[in-house]
Amino acid sequence: MSYASVAEVLGGKIAVDSQITVRGWVRTRRDSKAGISFINIHDGSCFDALQAVVPAELSNYENEVQKLTTGCSIAITGVVVRSQGKGQSFELQATNVRVYGWVEDPDTYPMSPKRHSMEYLREYAHLRPRTNITGAVMRVRHTLAQAIHRFFDERGYLWVSTPIITTSDCEGAGEMFRVSTLDMLNVPKTEDGKVDFSQDFFGKEAFLTVSGQLNVESYASSLSKVYTFGPTFRAENSNTSRHLSEFWMVEPEVAFADLNDIAGLAADMLQYVFAAVLRERPDDMAFFAQRIKADAVERLQAIVDSEFVHMDYTDAIEILQNCGEKFEYPVEWGVDLQSEHERYLAEKHVGGPVILKNYPRDIKAFYMRQNEDGKTVAAMDVLAPGIGEIIGGSAREERLDILDKRIEEMQLPKEEYQFYRDLRRYGTVPHAGFGLGFERLVAYVTGVQNIRDVIPFPRAPKSAAF
Amino acid sequence: MSYASVAEVLGGKIAVDSQITVRGWVRTRRDSKAGISFINIHDGSCFDALQAVVPAELSNYENEVQKLTTGCSIAITGVVVRSQGKGQSFELQATNVRVYGWVEDPDTYPMSPKRHSMEYLREYAHLRPRTNITGAVMRVRHTLAQAIHRFFDERGYLWVSTPIITTSDCEGAGEMFRVSTLDMLNVPKTEDGKVDFSQDFFGKEAFLTVSGQLNVESYASSLSKVYTFGPTFRAENSNTSRHLSEFWMVEPEVAFADLNDIAGLAADMLQYVFAAVLRERPDDMAFFAQRIKADAVERLQAIVDSEFVHMDYTDAIEILQNCGEKFEYPVEWGVDLQSEHERYLAEKHVGGPVILKNYPRDIKAFYMRQNEDGKTVAAMDVLAPGIGEIIGGSAREERLDILDKRIEEMQLPKEEYQFYRDLRRYGTVPHAGFGLGFERLVAYVTGVQNIRDVIPFPRAPKSAAF
Repeated sequence: MSYASVAEVLGGKIAVDSQITVRGWVRTRRDSKAGISFINIHDGSCFDALQAVVPAELSNYENEVQKLTTGCSIAITGVVVRSQGKGQSFELQATNVRVYGWVEDPDTYPMSPKRHSMEYLREYAHLRPRTNITGAVMRVRHTLAQAIHRFFDERGYLWVSTPIITTSDCEGAGEMFRVSTLDMLNVPKTEDGKVDFSQDFFGKEAFLTVSGQLNVESYASSLSKVYTFGPTFRAENSNTSRHLSEFWMVEPEVAFADLNDIAGLAADMLQYVFAAVLRERPDDMAFFAQRIKADAVERLQAIVDSEFVHMDYTDAIEILQNCGEKFEYPVEWGVDLQSEHERYLAEKHVGGPVILKNYPRDIKAFYMRQNEDGKTVAAMDVLAPGIGEIIGGSAREERLDILDKRIEEMQLPKEEYQFYRDLRRYGTVPHAGFGLGFERLVAYVTGVQNIRDVIPFPRAPKSAAF
Repeated sequence: MSYASVAEVLGGKIAVDSQITVRGWVRTRRDSKAGISFINIHDGSCFDALQAVVPAELSNYENEVQKLTTGCSIAITGVVVRSQGKGQSFELQATNVRVYGWVEDPDTYPMSPKRHSMEYLREYAHLRPRTNITGAVMRVRHTLAQAIHRFFDERGYLWVSTPIITTSDCEGAGEMFRVSTLDMLNVPKTEDGKVDFSQDFFGKEAFLTVSGQLNVESYASSLSKVYTFGPTFRAENSNTSRHLSEFWMVEPEVAFADLNDIAGLAADMLQYVFAAVLRERPDDMAFFAQRIKADAVERLQAIVDSEFVHMDYTDAIEILQNCGEKFEYPVEWGVDLQSEHERYLAEKHVGGPVILKNYPRDIKAFYMRQNEDGKTVAAMDVLAPGIGEIIGGSAREERLDILDKRIEEMQLPKEEYQFYRDLRRYGTVPHAGFGLGFERLVAYVTGVQNIRDVIPFPRAPKSAAF
């Protein structure tokens, strides 16, 4: 028996007239008056389902084929022929249909072929990959992830898995989840009434990481070009379409790189992964353009073909103040830009991707490298039309004295940063890196509004089912 | 200024007589009586450091070059020439040396060029990638991870990121860490005196996952060929060289696959990734052969060239009982095999990799597919010479009635398995998958004894520093 995927048949990889078997799930069944059935079968290998023409002569035609409903699992053996209908090039002339699994009570099958709301689908996160939209999102997600790994590998970067559990609370990027094995009904206490974490699993209070950056800097300070790609966590009570409690981050870190190097790397990476998706997933992207966002393909292609415009934060403020646009949030030097400002710059002022650089020191993290002006740091954000900020990065402060001063000014616990300070004591190097929230990238590429719909099993406040 | 990596220069990618700049860290400096210095510089791009010949004529020769010590960060500009010495093909005739960062008090620099114990290096997890051994391990680790992604991508598998935080305690593969934001000094209680997790972040008691398998099965039941590659956690108090509290797992899951299909996939994957490492990291592998395990290269090559022998558990028991070998743990039908038994089978009986199949039902997980004999399940382990079990997998029970019976027999909380049962209620399919502990793979390939030395920042009981 020779098996083929739907993608292979529809992609013309199987010679016409060969006999093959395709296995998957029924999307729809339609019976013609002429006594044949049309079954659309999908297997996740591509966007479209494959049509099989099933003749009434099959021995199980009446008692099985005609009872097939959406979601049943089957194998169809048949001959590949050119399709006469519109839309598809190939179809299957079935000679055998084997049923693996029925749908218990088809009337209540949660993934019936009608259109469901995204909220409804979220309630069935274990079944929603059977739908057109979630299937397409997950194939694009896969292709983006592969392209990211390939991009860095081809350029000599090493993937470094930074730790998920951390006892350092110095990452400073957001609220953290505690990780513990202590009995919560019988919490051990120290003499002064605090929780005695010395009795906990790690002998110290432990958390889920909010960023791999500080750790991956130590690898950049020895292996030069590295990146993390792993899960990170925020215990923030934000029930928005842009926040997840658990999400994946891509964080390259490059020794001997400055702000412009890392800005260039960010632009190259985005262009590389967008080009990969357009090349490898044209069917899924066509669906997003048709159903979710009309310019889904064009806007990626435009970025692939763009020069990214570099602009100083200070110049951007002036542009925003003098552009005559009414913004909800007022703009003045020193404020953090809002999405409306970022989108104005990318969409209206430039009409393409923008890299904003050299932000005010006081709105940025302690580790960002201070510029000569004493007011700004070598930070950058990549702004894309239709979303605003998609990547944030910076040169890191590699000068121990300036770093220490900043830690003191911000009243951070210096003793927590010993390993980070060591990197500056022993052969310190200028270095820079950026962070990309992977789900925001997937949402941007697919046009899907809510970030919970681009990760298989989303975690959010009061929500961690499955 | 044209930059090059050490790998590019040593690999002959830079034309002889071109002028380039290499940036990295000093491994050693040696001054000759003839008034020149030899500096070995490494940048993580390959195993070897590059030798630069620095003439005394440089303006900073006396006050900088001659003060360079191990770990200082520098840029050396010079002309690429063929090396006269043995060992290396190319070296650099330096025309300029720029110092980026000195080593504070070289006498106490933790990564001095002498040989350190692995235990010592673990105390300096942020600096140990500067050593030969950790650098080599991390390059091999990277290459293995890339090869795994590439293997699955080339075969049409989709990467599915299964959740890290889970409210399901039904995974049953080991002790779990709790994830919470509750105030441990003021734990909310229900009326009957239990912890009131409805007030916790996720509204339910939440844990770190021990396996993505159950989740990824739902994606196999719609997208057919999928795999996870992500971190998993065990809160077991095992302080051994084979256990980590946090480790990465590779778990493919394949719809319409049976035990032999998945056994074949496991063998193909191992051969693919071993071949990739031998091809892409010959310098690092040569080091492991020289310093860690003499047959490091040969044993991987042998597996690449092997047919994996399939053997039934029941036959293996008979072989072990009749082989005349003295084992610490006695062997009889129904016991779980120990490492000594697995290694005997792979090393002495077969002399190569073995796939053991059809284990007794009672020593295996509830989800494994029951065989017709009523005693065994369609489980398999891949045993490799020198380590024993490296991969474990099974066909999954796709028949709802048999699954339910097994859940009842094992007294598992059926209500926790609703989503898993749904996959059997709606178009169930035969399917199978396996799990590979990624760090065990890296340890096997490199020959490094302790698994804590093949992950950047190891987590173990009482140990989660950095």
